[in-house]
Amino acid sequence: MELVIKNGTVVTASEMFTADVGVLDGKIAAIGKDLSAEQTVDASGLLVLPGAIDVHTHLQMDVGKFSTADSYFAGTRAAACGGTTTVFDFALQDFGENMVDTIKRRDALCAPTAAVDYAFHVAIKDISGNLLDSMKQAVEFGVPTFKVYMVYDIGIGDGDFYRVLEESAKIGARISVHAENREIIDLLTSRFVSEGKTDPWHHYLSRAEFTEGEAVSRAITWAISAGAPLYIVHLACKEGVDALVRARNAGHKIYAETCPQYLNFTSDVYKREDGHLFVCSPPIKGKESNDAIWEAIKDGHIDTVATDHCPFQKADKDMGYRDFTKSPNGCAGVENMYPYILSEANKGRISFSRAVELCCTTPAALFGCVDKGSLIPGKDADIVLYDTSRKVTISNDKMHSDVDHTIWEDVSLCGYPVQTFSRGRLVYKDGEFLGSPGWGKFIRRNLDN
Amino acid sequence: MELVIKNGTVVTASEMFTADVGVLDGKIAAIGKDLSAEQTVDASGLLVLPGAIDVHTHLQMDVGKFSTADSYFAGTRAAACGGTTTVFDFALQDFGENMVDTIKRRDALCAPTAAVDYAFHVAIKDISGNLLDSMKQAVEFGVPTFKVYMVYDIGIGDGDFYRVLEESAKIGARISVHAENREIIDLLTSRFVSEGKTDPWHHYLSRAEFTEGEAVSRAITWAISAGAPLYIVHLACKEGVDALVRARNAGHKIYAETCPQYLNFTSDVYKREDGHLFVCSPPIKGKESNDAIWEAIKDGHIDTVATDHCPFQKADKDMGYRDFTKSPNGCAGVENMYPYILSEANKGRISFSRAVELCCTTPAALFGCVDKGSLIPGKDADIVLYDTSRKVTISNDKMHSDVDHTIWEDVSLCGYPVQTFSRGRLVYKDGEFLGSPGWGKFIRRNLDN
Amino acid sequence: MELVIKNGTVVTASEMFTADVGVLDGKIAAIGKDLSAEQTVDASGLLVLPGAIDVHTHLQMDVGKFSTADSYFAGTRAAACGGTTTVFDFALQDFGENMVDTIKRRDALCAPTAAVDYAFHVAIKDISGNLLDSMKQAVEFGVPTFKVYMVYDIGIGDGDFYRVLEESAKIGARISVHAENREIIDLLTSRFVSEGKTDPWHHYLSRAEFTEGEAVSRAITWAISAGAPLYIVHLACKEGVDALVRARNAGHKIYAETCPQYLNFTSDVYKREDGHLFVCSPPIKGKESNDAIWEAIKDGHIDTVATDHCPFQKADKDMGYRDFTKSPNGCAGVENMYPYILSEANKGRISFSRAVELCCTTPAALFGCVDKGSLIPGKDADIVLYDTSRKVTISNDKMHSDVDHTIWEDVSLCGYPVQTFSRGRLVYKDGEFLGSPGWGKFIRRNLDN
Amino acid sequence: MELVIKNGTVVTASEMFTADVGVLDGKIAAIGKDLSAEQTVDASGLLVLPGAIDVHTHLQMDVGKFSTADSYFAGTRAAACGGTTTVFDFALQDFGENMVDTIKRRDALCAPTAAVDYAFHVAIKDISGNLLDSMKQAVEFGVPTFKVYMVYDIGIGDGDFYRVLEESAKIGARISVHAENREIIDLLTSRFVSEGKTDPWHHYLSRAEFTEGEAVSRAITWAISAGAPLYIVHLACKEGVDALVRARNAGHKIYAETCPQYLNFTSDVYKREDGHLFVCSPPIKGKESNDAIWEAIKDGHIDTVATDHCPFQKADKDMGYRDFTKSPNGCAGVENMYPYILSEANKGRISFSRAVELCCTTPAALFGCVDKGSLIPGKDADIVLYDTSRKVTISNDKMHSDVDHTIWEDVSLCGYPVQTFSRGRLVYKDGEFLGSPGWGKFIRRNLDN
Repeated sequence: MELVIKNGTVVTASEMFTADVGVLDGKIAAIGKDLSAEQTVDASGLLVLPGAIDVHTHLQMDVGKFSTADSYFAGTRAAACGGTTTVFDFALQDFGENMVDTIKRRDALCAPTAAVDYAFHVAIKDISGNLLDSMKQAVEFGVPTFKVYMVYDIGIGDGDFYRVLEESAKIGARISVHAENREIIDLLTSRFVSEGKTDPWHHYLSRAEFTEGEAVSRAITWAISAGAPLYIVHLACKEGVDALVRARNAGHKIYAETCPQYLNFTSDVYKREDGHLFVCSPPIKGKESNDAIWEAIKDGHIDTVATDHCPFQKADKDMGYRDFTKSPNGCAGVENMYPYILSEANKGRISFSRAVELCCTTPAALFGCVDKGSLIPGKDADIVLYDTSRKVTISNDKMHSDVDHTIWEDVSLCGYPVQTFSRGRLVYKDGEFLGSPGWGKFIRRNLDN
Repeated sequence: MELVIKNGTVVTASEMFTADVGVLDGKIAAIGKDLSAEQTVDASGLLVLPGAIDVHTHLQMDVGKFSTADSYFAGTRAAACGGTTTVFDFALQDFGENMVDTIKRRDALCAPTAAVDYAFHVAIKDISGNLLDSMKQAVEFGVPTFKVYMVYDIGIGDGDFYRVLEESAKIGARISVHAENREIIDLLTSRFVSEGKTDPWHHYLSRAEFTEGEAVSRAITWAISAGAPLYIVHLACKEGVDALVRARNAGHKIYAETCPQYLNFTSDVYKREDGHLFVCSPPIKGKESNDAIWEAIKDGHIDTVATDHCPFQKADKDMGYRDFTKSPNGCAGVENMYPYILSEANKGRISFSRAVELCCTTPAALFGCVDKGSLIPGKDADIVLYDTSRKVTISNDKMHSDVDHTIWEDVSLCGYPVQTFSRGRLVYKDGEFLGSPGWGKFIRRNLDN
Repeated sequence: MELVIKNGTVVTASEMFTADVGVLDGKIAAIGKDLSAEQTVDASGLLVLPGAIDVHTHLQMDVGKFSTADSYFAGTRAAACGGTTTVFDFALQDFGENMVDTIKRRDALCAPTAAVDYAFHVAIKDISGNLLDSMKQAVEFGVPTFKVYMVYDIGIGDGDFYRVLEESAKIGARISVHAENREIIDLLTSRFVSEGKTDPWHHYLSRAEFTEGEAVSRAITWAISAGAPLYIVHLACKEGVDALVRARNAGHKIYAETCPQYLNFTSDVYKREDGHLFVCSPPIKGKESNDAIWEAIKDGHIDTVATDHCPFQKADKDMGYRDFTKSPNGCAGVENMYPYILSEANKGRISFSRAVELCCTTPAALFGCVDKGSLIPGKDADIVLYDTSRKVTISNDKMHSDVDHTIWEDVSLCGYPVQTFSRGRLVYKDGEFLGSPGWGKFIRRNLDN
Repeated sequence: MELVIKNGTVVTASEMFTADVGVLDGKIAAIGKDLSAEQTVDASGLLVLPGAIDVHTHLQMDVGKFSTADSYFAGTRAAACGGTTTVFDFALQDFGENMVDTIKRRDALCAPTAAVDYAFHVAIKDISGNLLDSMKQAVEFGVPTFKVYMVYDIGIGDGDFYRVLEESAKIGARISVHAENREIIDLLTSRFVSEGKTDPWHHYLSRAEFTEGEAVSRAITWAISAGAPLYIVHLACKEGVDALVRARNAGHKIYAETCPQYLNFTSDVYKREDGHLFVCSPPIKGKESNDAIWEAIKDGHIDTVATDHCPFQKADKDMGYRDFTKSPNGCAGVENMYPYILSEANKGRISFSRAVELCCTTPAALFGCVDKGSLIPGKDADIVLYDTSRKVTISNDKMHSDVDHTIWEDVSLCGYPVQTFSRGRLVYKDGEFLGSPGWGKFIRRNLDN
């Protein structure tokens, strides 16, 4: 073996135990006692964790006149420094575009610069003509997961949503959905605009809690009726959790993700002077919803945590300083997710095994990353060493993203990653990024279900 | 007193007892023992019931190239012969029309010919400009109940639906809703058409059970969020009942109506050779839904029974013999509702008091018919004598509608109305209509809530 | 007619309307407009209500060295003055006694002195030998309702309880149950005694909320399993309500009563200096239980309100001043129930129709008092006139019981009964009892179910 | 390393992967790729599983005039041959006996003969005097788990049950409960006896489904109220599952075990001519209960599977051939549990990981067997090799128990264990027991909660 991480406490989705982890050729070669190798890392007193998989980021993305702040390099660099060793980005289909072309177009940008391994979902805009058939081609290309929007100009109607679900069930794919009700949000927004109520708090009110709840409920109905599994991204509201739990208790394959910003903050952020910086969709909800998603995290009804990392520079966000309709939507988070969830585990809110399950093992299993997500012989040596005694107060100038501010500023964490390995290579240590652009590889996947 | 109905068993929404019913000036003057009057009707062995209120009919209505089979006269005549002494019709707004004008336009047709008392709901198509304000004017005119469609060309979107609900909460009105999902129905219909599957069974499949369930659930979400009460017309599916019960258990004012055709038949009728004659929307659902609405009838979660009487002549229906998309939608029922529900009570499925509550007392209370719905001193003497021992097999040639066929053909009833009084006047006896056009009066109403 | 009550607002279990009520031969002869008679009572501005039926009192009862404070005369006099015109007492079987003998033994005491009509339940202690057969004889005698205790020395075990339920199902009887868990209460009591914790608050703790909840749940299980209906007396706790609702939603005939003391007070009374005066079993529970029983009152899961009137003189209660184990258990209430419930209706918490249903119509229907419970022609003229504008603060010296204190002292009511008629005879007016001992008649009953 | 199991598919509670398992000094030393050692076992094509832990057996137990068929040696030998490497037995307290003495008394019998590792629960009969204090002494001795019976002569009442629960919460212990209602079972039994209905089917009827359901519900109430965790042994009925799920959803630490006989059979076995051989308590329930426990197995509400292995020789069982009251209660199973559950996994009913969780990982975690239950470096090398392609039809003459018949006769399994290692020593291979008496060690435990 070329590398052994000695005497750490290995964490799996079901257990914790003291052992050495041996690495050979970028893979985990053994978990055991008294392993030896040329190179040794002493992990005494540290947790040895799988690297996290962030299945929801928006890197190097143009939205009208704005672009997200992080290039593929900057975003994946930040990921590595937060213990995330696999990143999923959305390949957003152009109108009329074959979805395989969409993937290739994005991969051409990503491949040369990615600092950690990556994969794509296709975000579907157009199934006219025979574009629906290109879903199957995308699956064959290694991208079996797709996303639809129920809102925005790129949103699709119930009919197309239903067709896409039916198709997914046939071809071994799975649809993710951004669920909010477009018409009611448009109504409330134009009303608030006409009344001159455009501060950040009215961003929250315009996308009222029930507008997400209704859409989640409707999306679930289509999935069940079409006989298709469904993955709800960034679930943020109580009504949505209620609909989710009903469907799961009835035996349906409805999966859900939430994001760290919905877990750590509430809509109170929109009352802050700098509240416009945190305008995102769905907005961060109230305390009752926050309690509901934490409950679902604990009882297993939410499957994964991912970031919806979609930051814009402060100058861009400031365009919407007192007019939420002018602000690009999205928050930073790719470097903060794993440290935050592990910190909550460290404080006792959930177990470390549950944290690993949420951020690593279940994302790998649900999204077909067969070489990722666990510290198991044969899997990629994506490994994080975590110091439970390290206290960190987040400040943006210590982060490794290109974005110039963060919702996580001044949040205190209990414990922090101290080293990250990507396929056996040390890419982060004690605050320093040690990786390089182009190291990350594209992951071709297929799904079980 | 001018009339006493002697020795019958009076039925109220909560009790049954033997008493005489005295009538003076078209009103109930007394309920008691040993009442006397000039004219006496012997009701020994008979039930003495309030006349039914059918809050859902479509009379003298044009739909594209078709017209419903019953004129206002024919429809109200049939009602009287089935023990229904009050009929609600829909005044369908034209685009651009002030809703009060809509009401007056229809009343001009109805007033000269109605054989029993009647009222209107306004069916809303257009709230552009300041037409929304005409809702309040309609309320002041005595029409505080409105209907919106979520389907058809006259259907309105979620945004307008939400605005109408908000307005209703402000002005003391209440919205009724025809809840089905338009986009999915369009998708399924066009698919079946393209596949040549246009027999009546595919009418049922094209408006799949979940398309109603989803729309009911969504409508309820809007009502709760807008702080408005809501009345769901012709509820026919299990998922809808489930959503209803959840909302009511959470304390919301969500009301529901079902129709006799959903109670007595299942989707099996669409497998019949003459199944196209029963094409209606929502279609009659499967056994599981039938069980669910019966359960809700029994446990009180469905408030009313009404007919959605909307018959077309056989020649019109035959246009859609093997192509459901060509058939006008709707079934007959105004003469059958009360006899059917009473027959079910007579068989023991529900109590007679519950039958009266469903067909008389609750419709009167919910829709503001303060002089109707109960055998109480001071109310209109709308009275039905019912013979529990009369066995009747329904045949269309004995019915008093102008329509030339009925879904109720050959259905056997246990018990039947033998006399109907409208404001003290005998308008039906032993199979004969004894009333006259123009007797019916327009009922101006206002709501409690 | 001999008496007409003019122009009042008549309240039934389903409606309210202005009418006259005519009386002949102690029966209601007519409800109508413009009735006339020799004697007229002007009820303008008043509610005209049926007299209440209190199905749960303990009059003239010996318990060890104590006796309840009210004789049959005093208790029924107090009832009349509170608008209650029918009272049920428990005929407590002696060991070895045929249950018909039990009834006769008690009736011999009651018949000469009762001021309003009355009926008995048999409280069963002993079914050894062929005493079980005397249940049927009691039914034939006109007493089809029985009570068992799960606590106290007179409590019966699960086996005998089950046998009694089975028997009741066979013979058209119904069992009522006092549900608390004897063993746990004994354990907690002896523990508190050994620790010297015997203040009234520890009475509440010794009969902890769950001890009632468990027993209710168990009793329901036996009833369902034995195929017998069941009536739960004085339901006071949330867990019990939960078990009740589950059973009813599953379609079982489980009925429940609560008492006004559980509705108006919480366990906080046991923190008062005079808390020992309110020691009763089950004890008055906490706020969460109070909310739960009010919710069940509103949504219909609790069927009746009755008093468990079982007062002891202050000197007797004082025996347990700082030792709850020495205090006889029970509170006063027979004169307060109907005024209290009507006052709550007057304040808008429930409708007057619901108040009538809880206190009159449902008790009559459930317990087979065919001549009682409603203002309907042919029923007994048990009538209460109620002034919604009368403000009354309860003080024991204005009450008509023989007991020398009351838990209701200083409670303010909004509205109050001003006249009570028993079978057409005025027995109470404006604070004065006008009846006489021996007027009350024994009611022989049989049940529907 | 001294032993490597090569190329098998390792199964953990959360994952499956191909790896070698290395053993040193009876412990698992490493899980990895290309491990080497002196001795090698080829596990290509086989599953490599942790040995099962059967937390519920009755070995070498006297019950009145009967004794269970298996000595400690025979029972643990059979366990080894079924892939079970740890067995829990009940040390049944004598009246008046200090519980540590109880343990020592039993261990003196077990230690010299056990073929696999073993532990004890104390079955509590008597907490009079200061015997309750001996619970804590037992915990300190390494036996922190206790059992109480709600039935039989050794059953304890609600009061003692409650005290034991309270004590367990204080001292870090946990109570297991055999939940059936004694009084109702006694009533039904004596009734059937008096009616001459004593065939095996009446064994089932005498311990009716609801008698278990009620007791489970009551036991849960006591545990919640006492603030103690609770473990329900051999849960077999739907009502019990319902109560369990309610409690768990409310956040309480209520755990449950079921047994393979309840999973594979229904009460139909009692209609067989040899039905008396399967008389056990609780009896095997009907189809609805069978469905409910399978559902709970799948959705995670049942935590463990154990056997309640308690066989008696056929001659003993025959004493109750047509009189179930004369038959000693209990069935065989210690050799069949793991093969049966794995076979169900092999057929796809649950995953192999879930099978391991049910039979190994969760029992180890719940009962404090820190060195058992998983294939993790540092744990005991209790390993089972399982051939998924082996078809086995169970016949008693191939089993390794001393009992002369089995309920599992003729049951066909899909897959079977082919080798069992106990702390690295091969104790079973291809049908042959290779271990020796006295090899098994007593496991001292303590609990987390």
